[in-house]
Amino acid sequence: MRIALCQLNYKVGDVEGNTGKILEAYKHAVADKSDLVLFSELAICGYPPQDLLDHPHFINKCLKALNVLAENTGETAMIVGCPIRSELKQGKKLFNSAAVLCNGKIEQIFSKTLLPNYNIFDEYRYFEPNDSFSLWSFKGLKIAVTICEDLWDLDEPSLYKTSPMVALHKLAPDLLINLSGSPFSYKHIENRRELMRFNAQKYNLPLFYVNQVGANTDIIFDGGSMFITHEGVIADECEYFEEDCKVVEWLPNKAYDSHSHNYKNEDIALIYNALKLGLKDYFNKSGFSKSILGLSGGLDSAVVTALIAEAIGVENVLPVMLPSKYSSDHSIDDSVELCKNLGLSYEIIPIEEVVNSLEAILKPLFKDTKPGVAEENLQARARGNILMALSNKFGHILLNTTNKSEAAVGYGTLYGDLCGGISVLGDVYKTQVYQLAEYINRHEEIIPQNILLKPPSAELSPGQLDSDSLPDYDVLDAILCQYIENQLGPLEIIDLGFDANLVKKIIAMVDRNEYKRFQFPPILRVSDKAFGIGRKMPVVGKVN
Amino acid sequence: MRIALCQLNYKVGDVEGNTGKILEAYKHAVADKSDLVLFSELAICGYPPQDLLDHPHFINKCLKALNVLAENTGETAMIVGCPIRSELKQGKKLFNSAAVLCNGKIEQIFSKTLLPNYNIFDEYRYFEPNDSFSLWSFKGLKIAVTICEDLWDLDEPSLYKTSPMVALHKLAPDLLINLSGSPFSYKHIENRRELMRFNAQKYNLPLFYVNQVGANTDIIFDGGSMFITHEGVIADECEYFEEDCKVVEWLPNKAYDSHSHNYKNEDIALIYNALKLGLKDYFNKSGFSKSILGLSGGLDSAVVTALIAEAIGVENVLPVMLPSKYSSDHSIDDSVELCKNLGLSYEIIPIEEVVNSLEAILKPLFKDTKPGVAEENLQARARGNILMALSNKFGHILLNTTNKSEAAVGYGTLYGDLCGGISVLGDVYKTQVYQLAEYINRHEEIIPQNILLKPPSAELSPGQLDSDSLPDYDVLDAILCQYIENQLGPLEIIDLGFDANLVKKIIAMVDRNEYKRFQFPPILRVSDKAFGIGRKMPVVGKVN
Repeated sequence: MRIALCQLNYKVGDVEGNTGKILEAYKHAVADKSDLVLFSELAICGYPPQDLLDHPHFINKCLKALNVLAENTGETAMIVGCPIRSELKQGKKLFNSAAVLCNGKIEQIFSKTLLPNYNIFDEYRYFEPNDSFSLWSFKGLKIAVTICEDLWDLDEPSLYKTSPMVALHKLAPDLLINLSGSPFSYKHIENRRELMRFNAQKYNLPLFYVNQVGANTDIIFDGGSMFITHEGVIADECEYFEEDCKVVEWLPNKAYDSHSHNYKNEDIALIYNALKLGLKDYFNKSGFSKSILGLSGGLDSAVVTALIAEAIGVENVLPVMLPSKYSSDHSIDDSVELCKNLGLSYEIIPIEEVVNSLEAILKPLFKDTKPGVAEENLQARARGNILMALSNKFGHILLNTTNKSEAAVGYGTLYGDLCGGISVLGDVYKTQVYQLAEYINRHEEIIPQNILLKPPSAELSPGQLDSDSLPDYDVLDAILCQYIENQLGPLEIIDLGFDANLVKKIIAMVDRNEYKRFQFPPILRVSDKAFGIGRKMPVVGKVN
Repeated sequence: MRIALCQLNYKVGDVEGNTGKILEAYKHAVADKSDLVLFSELAICGYPPQDLLDHPHFINKCLKALNVLAENTGETAMIVGCPIRSELKQGKKLFNSAAVLCNGKIEQIFSKTLLPNYNIFDEYRYFEPNDSFSLWSFKGLKIAVTICEDLWDLDEPSLYKTSPMVALHKLAPDLLINLSGSPFSYKHIENRRELMRFNAQKYNLPLFYVNQVGANTDIIFDGGSMFITHEGVIADECEYFEEDCKVVEWLPNKAYDSHSHNYKNEDIALIYNALKLGLKDYFNKSGFSKSILGLSGGLDSAVVTALIAEAIGVENVLPVMLPSKYSSDHSIDDSVELCKNLGLSYEIIPIEEVVNSLEAILKPLFKDTKPGVAEENLQARARGNILMALSNKFGHILLNTTNKSEAAVGYGTLYGDLCGGISVLGDVYKTQVYQLAEYINRHEEIIPQNILLKPPSAELSPGQLDSDSLPDYDVLDAILCQYIENQLGPLEIIDLGFDANLVKKIIAMVDRNEYKRFQFPPILRVSDKAFGIGRKMPVVGKVN
């Protein structure tokens, strides 16, 4: 039997566009003599569709598209993800389903049993879990059709009270299919592969696993669809970070060699590729082609410039240097060198006059006060205003260059450097930004050494350095990771050997700055716990 | 039996503070000879605790507090809401529970069966649903203890497959208790009362219902705790929008008269009171006392000024007028009159020089372009910068004055007039803002007639009026309500009799501006469907 794994890049909500892609891939697979063509979870609407699922007219559109797909099938069967209305008198109105289409009609529907509702997932918001189990008979085989989380209940203790695989296994299937919408994180690829291999071995079933690829706003999908033998050998694997369709020639008793990527110890390369894909899709899918960003002379904006140039092309990137009287000379020189290395045109717009005019009109109100954060922020917001004016005038999307360490402790000016349509590094700790820069420079020097070596500074007051108010970034990031990713409390973190006062100070900064993160742009997610969609903390409230 | 309904205002996450309040109210109720003292859902941590529940050290803190409360109980029993760890080997780690405390110990735990996971609710993110049912025996009575949504499954078809009341009713209880965390919306009060009366009648049980009161960031709780007889008579009801503890003398066969508030046809008064409470708690609970806002001379900022002055006192409010060359003379005069009527001091800061300096440095880049949105936004962002500078300097929280109609169609400048710590009117349509203004003027003219009568304008270009680019607000709001609240699609709205092109244009504006709302401040929620926490739409995606 020939089974096609179609790993496509869907746009959330674009039912016509997604359906067109699915049909085209199906036709190619048919031409390639496939018997069965597999697409990913909720492929017709794209994942995650969020509250589009609450709109009945949107569900109608999905169901109409499903019927059009069914009408276009012949003997080659297709399995595709789609929201399906429940006909039960109780429970939520929808199922997250896999529809089997064949010979011009919808032959069978299988629905998802385990609905993830943690971190970035909120499937219980929309779907009723399946609770009845059956197999699909196709060409003499009994096939178990599952959806994503259905294979993820192997943890002890399990989050779930039912196990779809235990139920399906009793029906003695011959092979196992999983349509997935499994997002990227740099720790997730190996986990996912191990878990899928474990499933194949545990249930002694060949597993055909199809994931989507591409980014929808902040959530990046890396693909990595695969065929795993009943012995747990990854015998075929689609590309990561790009569309890919593979046809697997499957024979029950054939022995397969292992053919899979190796991403162990490749965290930074993975993050780099994920961010590039995230940026590319943000621009492609939102219909904008050009980007703008402020180049400070520091590391974060340099890394973002290199990433965006790679993602959408140098001709589409406008770096702007906005020096104030506190900017050091090397800030401009280093930025100019970066632009030269990348082949980028740039603009220089000194902001001193704007800041002077702001200070002049505020002078009567600010009299008898000491210069401080208010004055510093004037500069950052003047820059934000100028960058947004250029964005509004010429249709460039402003990129936010704040890193995760800064976003965590609130080191940044709301409506100033926190502006932007998308945050590129908001899920990348500063220590990882250094590693990204080294990765970018792996073949040749793109980011000037000077930028890598200078001590980090916001340059908002004379001689200011990040280290004036923050500990070294390796210490800061270690504490932040324990608090944010590992969700430890202050006492538990102190028990790990960190300075008690420092831990308390940093955690207080994280908690206090929830209001800034509430108004943050969408953040390209690369870790298991990103700010934004997957972390919902009270803005007004006492945390520790 | 004397049963105390303790309707308190909790701060999310403030376990020590909340526990102190609970204990104090318990002691008062004991002094008042109560047999049983009831508190609301998740009272110990405040509702909604969001991802604080994911932190084990936070759960430890809640459980410690629960034990302290237990130790402080005597013969008078207490029932209080608290997250409790599950001891099951499968399912989520927590229950949303009601703990019965008596004679120094935790006597019994009841957990919530129906976990709402729609609109603003995401309880499946944290909790495992209860599936075993029992009663609590107390002084010869059999008592059914339920939590909020457990009584909300009366719709046909039901969202849920189990009915806790059907199960509990079989055990023949004598009375019914419900601990609730039921948020305000101006349509919700009557619904809630009717539903609770319906429960009491259907199961022929006296119902003691305790809700929390107060706002936690954007979610406002109105209270309205009540005692309903088995005949469905609301025999006692706590105050709305304030803390209130009532002791009910309950005798099984006593006949009770109806004693309840009447809020029918009082939508605007309810919204007014809810916003006032929302503002008051935003400031109280975040530890800030002073507010700042830009006074444009238009209706929205005038209404916000009147609201905040009422909520936190005139001495804590700093209105700032920021006229540009496009501001009409009456903008200042009308704003000054408003301030006089309210007894407010104000500042006037003309922004022309700042805008001139911005235009001057942008001139080389903007040459050969027509003035448009970019130039208009310069002004709005200069105002944002100045207001935030004052906020940073003196610790005033900036109030956002955008209304729901504007937030819907994206009529406002990101990082300009969309700035603010909290959005006061972001869930109030413009037509409702007019009604709020009339309500504010019900006793005397606070908002000058001129402000009420002038045609709405952003005053960002010469002679600009909202009606240049938007339909009349009554038409706009009607279409928006069908799309946002009722979730109708464009064709269905056109079928209601609206102009087809207008509907398509407005819906496209709503969809296109999701990116602006993503970065919006928290919005005080007063309707059933507010932007923000209860509506999650894709930023990059195709909606219609």
